[in-house]
Amino acid sequence: MTKRVFNFFAGPATLPLPVLEKAKEEFLDFANMGMSVLEISHRSEQWDKVMAEAGSLLRELMKIPSDYKIIWLGGGASTQFLMVPVNLQVPGKPLEYVSTGGWAEKAIKEAGLYGEVDIIASSKDENHSYIPKDVAFSEKAAYGHITSNNTLYGTEWHTWPEVPSDVPLVCDMSSDLMAREINVKDFGVIYAGAQKNLGPAGVTLTIVREDLLSRVPEKTPTMLKWKTHAKDSMYNTPPVFPIYISKLSLEYLKEIGGVKEIEGRNRRKAKILYDVIDNSDGFYKGHARADSRSLMNVTFTMATPELEDKCVAGATPLDLIGLKGHRSVGGMRASIYNAMPIEGVQKLAEYLTEFKENNQ
Amino acid sequence: MTKRVFNFFAGPATLPLPVLEKAKEEFLDFANMGMSVLEISHRSEQWDKVMAEAGSLLRELMKIPSDYKIIWLGGGASTQFLMVPVNLQVPGKPLEYVSTGGWAEKAIKEAGLYGEVDIIASSKDENHSYIPKDVAFSEKAAYGHITSNNTLYGTEWHTWPEVPSDVPLVCDMSSDLMAREINVKDFGVIYAGAQKNLGPAGVTLTIVREDLLSRVPEKTPTMLKWKTHAKDSMYNTPPVFPIYISKLSLEYLKEIGGVKEIEGRNRRKAKILYDVIDNSDGFYKGHARADSRSLMNVTFTMATPELEDKCVAGATPLDLIGLKGHRSVGGMRASIYNAMPIEGVQKLAEYLTEFKENNQ
Repeated sequence: MTKRVFNFFAGPATLPLPVLEKAKEEFLDFANMGMSVLEISHRSEQWDKVMAEAGSLLRELMKIPSDYKIIWLGGGASTQFLMVPVNLQVPGKPLEYVSTGGWAEKAIKEAGLYGEVDIIASSKDENHSYIPKDVAFSEKAAYGHITSNNTLYGTEWHTWPEVPSDVPLVCDMSSDLMAREINVKDFGVIYAGAQKNLGPAGVTLTIVREDLLSRVPEKTPTMLKWKTHAKDSMYNTPPVFPIYISKLSLEYLKEIGGVKEIEGRNRRKAKILYDVIDNSDGFYKGHARADSRSLMNVTFTMATPELEDKCVAGATPLDLIGLKGHRSVGGMRASIYNAMPIEGVQKLAEYLTEFKENNQ
Repeated sequence: MTKRVFNFFAGPATLPLPVLEKAKEEFLDFANMGMSVLEISHRSEQWDKVMAEAGSLLRELMKIPSDYKIIWLGGGASTQFLMVPVNLQVPGKPLEYVSTGGWAEKAIKEAGLYGEVDIIASSKDENHSYIPKDVAFSEKAAYGHITSNNTLYGTEWHTWPEVPSDVPLVCDMSSDLMAREINVKDFGVIYAGAQKNLGPAGVTLTIVREDLLSRVPEKTPTMLKWKTHAKDSMYNTPPVFPIYISKLSLEYLKEIGGVKEIEGRNRRKAKILYDVIDNSDGFYKGHARADSRSLMNVTFTMATPELEDKCVAGATPLDLIGLKGHRSVGGMRASIYNAMPIEGVQKLAEYLTEFKENNQ
């Protein structure tokens, strides 16, 4: 049997094993075409079918209303950081952002090239350990931008900020897309790099309310306009394989019960780890405030860096991989996206409990 | 045994079977990590190794001098169409282009957003059936841009145009990268979508002479600056799987003898098909002028569209797939990139010879 570890990397991240097995099975001969999915023309009917199915699965699972378009692109969320202001700026109106971490900061930096940026709230004062409260975007904003989950710090928005009805809320959901039920209608634009909760690296999803497609100035590079891609994401050759794997992941998510079911599992998984932290008498210190905790990335530190290194090193022989925290927080980080099985979380919790007993 | 056809699609296109087999073999467990290459962190040492090997293989195979940087990005050559003027424009200097087909026209359109474009030569007058002769870029140009091979029309530059020594020549080599030996020093920038001659869709290669990285205005979006990516293409998460498959393809190319060897094979393959056309007494009419013929895409028409449809349809049961010509030329197109085995070309030649005998 193939060796398989529990992969707690923050992204690219673990994928459901049945998805990988299916992809492997049909790797050399896709849809009885006598070629790999890597080799098929993106103008073939077989590829059209993959794209159509990926779109309709996503629409069904996320309950995306019909007036929202689904766009699959290369370039990562980092490219969306600039495409958001390119497509949504309005001369004279401020671009309003909330800074909840390093990725939000990167989005803010790009926006600054296109208009006056107003950071209406920030958690920088406490190393982004919380989500600001009572955030309200203003009437005058071209749009409001948030980052729903902050992988580096392990924080997540639990209720959305207030937004005037004609101001679109834009959300970078790279790290918690489909981790929990949301109402797409609360947003004007949702975007997400696939490599955490949807599929592999190499494709980025953007969901845009149709009326927002026409804001973009005519003299904008073709590839940077959402409306170029809104029809079918086939203006140019799409990232075929990453989309194909994302489609298989969506099929799998539907099969196991959809977003509601996975949200329940995610809440159970997160609780197991936060309970270990909360019951450790301070041996493990959660970085995120309890009211801002992420379902996806559990971040915590210990008394000394030496102890943290020992804890990470001791996990490796148990096949618990990718637990070293990001340098912005230090300590440890367990990324427990949709595809992380509860068994992995349980095994990690047992290890952490035992490690505490042996090292306190 | 898995079914395998001869895939003449123009791109995404056929890949070497040993590459696919190797990828399948290690699909669930990469480098003994207990996870798929789709799941590994792009910050892991195993991934660093893939990136480093891909770069050094490319450098070795193309003899890329040390003062050129190698960049792997998502977004396709269509994104490079805008990144070229973004990175190389010089206020007041014209952006000089040669129009040899639909892709060149798209590059020209994007450049028009950034400066005065001068189309110094064009083959549009004869439906891009030839490469213009005696092309010379001017001293005053910010850069000169050509498209080395034109997939839609089946034409290819056989000698490079004249360029003043301080004007960088920029070349879209998407469809003939590494099909033949070139001198990288003849170019300031080479770029290529991977999905024809290098790997699968989803990654684009850009090779830039180092001194050209600093031309870009400071206030340019981070993702659109080549210099953001020049160090290691790891500013953000790279398209992991497409790069990995490209690396395997480069390994394979090295193993079979490198660019010189594949150029010989490509010349033999192309000759087989052009001989069929030339010896058909006009039954098959090559679209490209003999002096402009492509090694990669052999385009030809017949007396009537009905005959062409019949010829394409008759090829399918023989596992000769993807032969319908692009609508801009009509007729048939056989794309015979590096990974197309000579057996496929021979089989197609036999079929065409027989088809002619039965239908003239």
